[in-house]
Amino acid sequence: VTAGELFHAEVREQPAALRHLLERGQEICELGSRLAGLAPPVFRLVGHGSSDNAAAFGIYAFALIGGRTAMRDSISLTTYYDAEIDFSGSVVIALSQSGRTPDVVDYVERARARGATTVAVTNDPGSALGLAADLTVELQAGEEAAVAATKTYTNQLAALVLLAAGAAGRGPELIAALEHVTGLFEEAIALSEAAVSRLATVFGFTGRMFVIGRGLEFATARELALKLTETCGVAAEPMTATELVHGPIAVLDPLFPVWAIASNDAGLPSVQEAAQRAREVGATVVASGSAAETIAGAAYRLPIPAAPSPLDPLLSIVPGQLFAWALASAKGLDPDRPTHLTKVTLAK
Amino acid sequence: VTAGELFHAEVREQPAALRHLLERGQEICELGSRLAGLAPPVFRLVGHGSSDNAAAFGIYAFALIGGRTAMRDSISLTTYYDAEIDFSGSVVIALSQSGRTPDVVDYVERARARGATTVAVTNDPGSALGLAADLTVELQAGEEAAVAATKTYTNQLAALVLLAAGAAGRGPELIAALEHVTGLFEEAIALSEAAVSRLATVFGFTGRMFVIGRGLEFATARELALKLTETCGVAAEPMTATELVHGPIAVLDPLFPVWAIASNDAGLPSVQEAAQRAREVGATVVASGSAAETIAGAAYRLPIPAAPSPLDPLLSIVPGQLFAWALASAKGLDPDRPTHLTKVTLAK
Repeated sequence: VTAGELFHAEVREQPAALRHLLERGQEICELGSRLAGLAPPVFRLVGHGSSDNAAAFGIYAFALIGGRTAMRDSISLTTYYDAEIDFSGSVVIALSQSGRTPDVVDYVERARARGATTVAVTNDPGSALGLAADLTVELQAGEEAAVAATKTYTNQLAALVLLAAGAAGRGPELIAALEHVTGLFEEAIALSEAAVSRLATVFGFTGRMFVIGRGLEFATARELALKLTETCGVAAEPMTATELVHGPIAVLDPLFPVWAIASNDAGLPSVQEAAQRAREVGATVVASGSAAETIAGAAYRLPIPAAPSPLDPLLSIVPGQLFAWALASAKGLDPDRPTHLTKVTLAK
Repeated sequence: VTAGELFHAEVREQPAALRHLLERGQEICELGSRLAGLAPPVFRLVGHGSSDNAAAFGIYAFALIGGRTAMRDSISLTTYYDAEIDFSGSVVIALSQSGRTPDVVDYVERARARGATTVAVTNDPGSALGLAADLTVELQAGEEAAVAATKTYTNQLAALVLLAAGAAGRGPELIAALEHVTGLFEEAIALSEAAVSRLATVFGFTGRMFVIGRGLEFATARELALKLTETCGVAAEPMTATELVHGPIAVLDPLFPVWAIASNDAGLPSVQEAAQRAREVGATVVASGSAAETIAGAAYRLPIPAAPSPLDPLLSIVPGQLFAWALASAKGLDPDRPTHLTKVTLAK
């Protein structure tokens, strides 16, 4: 395979991977319903890297679909500090593509021993994580060969939507909405592929970038920043639109671009305002998402179709994935095997 | 006043500000005890900027002192999305130096209307936040005139310790430990002042940096990165030691330094491992904290005294604050009034 071929192919496989997951959509909703029956005061989500970014979306999925509180739980409190947290009545949802991330497995074992009901969301149900947890949701994404996650990330988002929908008794509605998204994926990919090559040329020498989102789309900002950092050698820092204005705006200048994730939802006004502030201090603004055209003064826009709420993030990451692929290729880097990284991170 | 004089003076005022807060230590512990009596399944912490960094510490304070779960709650879910979250039985602790951050005030009003017991932790009990909340903890830090927070941040950490200690029935023990820390502050300041001028010269042209910590000290990594970003024009990104190894290590090179926050606690081995990985790819490593000397291969070390667990973060931020002051001064910037920033951020 040539450099970036695996990564590119896996980006394009996303609609098929989502369809594959949805074949078990009802089953995953039923699992969500069982979890809700335990009446947990909070759903504890854990993962590292892209899985942690999916967890950031999960907080919004559980709250917006069913008014439930989910949190990204601290792994280190349980795994390293051995804090005496009472997990009885808790539900843990642990995300790991490989199911082999050591401290996520350790967290699940300890949380389960302390009384939590634990669910593994993984591409490999036979993995250590799958074996450690009480219950498993298989991601059904097929083998992911590129080091940087793509189709497993979007299937993690979908799996969290299905669990939240089941917990809220809204399974059929959200399954239908996700099925609708599978059809929009092709358009999002086609629109983005047409735009990213030119943009990659522009940003060939960019060493730093801020990626901003708010609310639902903060997860997308995190995931895009991680893709740019791991595959393109760009130190891209994710932050909420509000955080940007609270301090980091001080470092912006015309050679320090800001990428704004813009979907047409309640988080949009704060993204518009932060992008405006970035423009005022001379930064170049890139806007992607279904509301990209509403970001005033953006030098570049990567529009995609709008998805039914709260599913925009499944599509919003697509322009960023394809930009990362195009930029890595333009810089002679291999997004399939980034420098210094391996597919399964064993480090603690 | 000359540039940076306010900021420097307020860094040095931290032990006095902490002593002032401790005059009401028992009262704050009693409030924590009352909150525990409500048996909340989770403590919801909210704030922006440095206050959000204090909240990141609060998660560890509540868990390590009393085995309780605290989380950094989403402001946007309640304020912008108006998600139908059930707050009954919840305890909210809202952090804002000025008490005037609009969306924090809005969050508190909505959470209270939905059934939460709300506590404002602020330097100004007569502020909108103080008036919106059921209960108030006054930070007692005295006026903070520099835009970048210092003594209000460390007093926020101490206030969270006192609330957690009261909730755990461990007030006297933690008050005594905090009193011990007031005495260590002077030494931490003196040691750091002696070291930062030379270091500031070395990093005069550094545009990017990663700041890593783990567990308890992730809050310090976030706060140091914010200080460097807002006062020195350095795009400093905070991340956990584990996150660094999961992707961002790919962008490191000899001109991209990594600052490691090293305290002698359960999070230390992962910081040591990540720093070692950063060294292997050629990055310059700076280490600060009570365990700075244990970071192999660090080019620069900023040691401070060790504090009783879990209070290290009150001192761990000191070398970073003083480095930010020295670096801003060396670059001809004014840390009292950073570019594009105001003391109270009204943006959403």
